[in-house]
Amino acid sequence: MPQNCPFCVQANSPAHAIKDLVWAFPHGIAVLGRWQFFRGYCVLFSRDHAHEPTDLPVKSRDGLMSDMWLLSRAITEVTSPRKLNYELLGNQVEHPHWHLFPRFISDPEHLKPAWIRIDREEGDPTSLPRLEGDPAERSSTISLLQAALSRMGAPSA
Amino acid sequence: MPQNCPFCVQANSPAHAIKDLVWAFPHGIAVLGRWQFFRGYCVLFSRDHAHEPTDLPVKSRDGLMSDMWLLSRAITEVTSPRKLNYELLGNQVEHPHWHLFPRFISDPEHLKPAWIRIDREEGDPTSLPRLEGDPAERSSTISLLQAALSRMGAPSA
Repeated sequence: MPQNCPFCVQANSPAHAIKDLVWAFPHGIAVLGRWQFFRGYCVLFSRDHAHEPTDLPVKSRDGLMSDMWLLSRAITEVTSPRKLNYELLGNQVEHPHWHLFPRFISDPEHLKPAWIRIDREEGDPTSLPRLEGDPAERSSTISLLQAALSRMGAPSA
Repeated sequence: MPQNCPFCVQANSPAHAIKDLVWAFPHGIAVLGRWQFFRGYCVLFSRDHAHEPTDLPVKSRDGLMSDMWLLSRAITEVTSPRKLNYELLGNQVEHPHWHLFPRFISDPEHLKPAWIRIDREEGDPTSLPRLEGDPAERSSTISLLQAALSRMGAPSA
C-alpha cells in the first residue's frame, strides 16, 4: 500500500470513518461521488492497490467487476437514468476506481461525457453548489442506494 | 437487433467488411478508434445488443470483459502508455461498447479525460488531422495490435 494513496487510506479505515460510504463490498468500496449534479454518481474503488486493473490479481479484478454490476443496478433502481456511464481512468489517482455516472434527459448535455461540464464548472464558485448537490440530498441518496443494495442482497465485507 | 444500430450492423458483417478491424473476439469486436491522437485508442463493442451491459446475458457481459482485458494488455504492450482509460458511455449509441484510451505523458492534458480535447477540437478542421492520425500510422497501429494479440494467443471467433 503506497502511503500517499488516498484510496488505500480509505480502504484501510473502519467503515464509519469512510466519508460518504455507500457500501463496503467484498472487493470494492462504494462512496457517493462529489458531482451530484449527476444524482447517484458513485465511485467504487478496489480494496487492493494497483496501477491498472489488469495488475490486480484476477480474483480481485473480477470481484471488483461483480461489485460494480450490483452497484450499477442499485443506482439505476434509485435514479432511473436514461443511461449509466462507467469509467475507470486513474489519470490523477492511480488506484483502480470506477466512476458510475447516471445521465438524465433533463441534462442538456446528456449526449456528452459528464466530464465536459465538470471540467468547465468546477473552478467556478457559483456553479459548484449545483454541481456538488446539497448535503441533505446527498444523505438521502446514500440511504436510498443502501436500501436498494440491501433489498438486492448485496454482499458486504 | 435494432436495424439502425451501427454496432449491430458491424457485428453482423463479415470480418473483411468491418472498418479498421483489430480483432474479432468471441464476445466483442475491436476496431481502431477515430481519435488516434491517443495512439492505440480502440473501441470494443459487444456482439449482442443491449441498452446497458447489465442487460446482456451474464455470459456475454463477462465474456466482453475478458476480451477487454486482453485488448487492454495488447494496447499497453504496443504503446506503453502512462495510463489506460476504460469507458463505457453509450450516450450517443446505446449498444455496449468500451472506449480504451491510452494516455501519454507527452499530452499536456494527460491528467484530464480524453474527451476534453476531443470535445474542444473535433469541430475544428485544422485540428482534425492531428486528432485522427494519418492513414499509414493507423494501419501500422492495427498491425502491431494484431501481432500482440496473436502472440498472447487471444481467442477469435
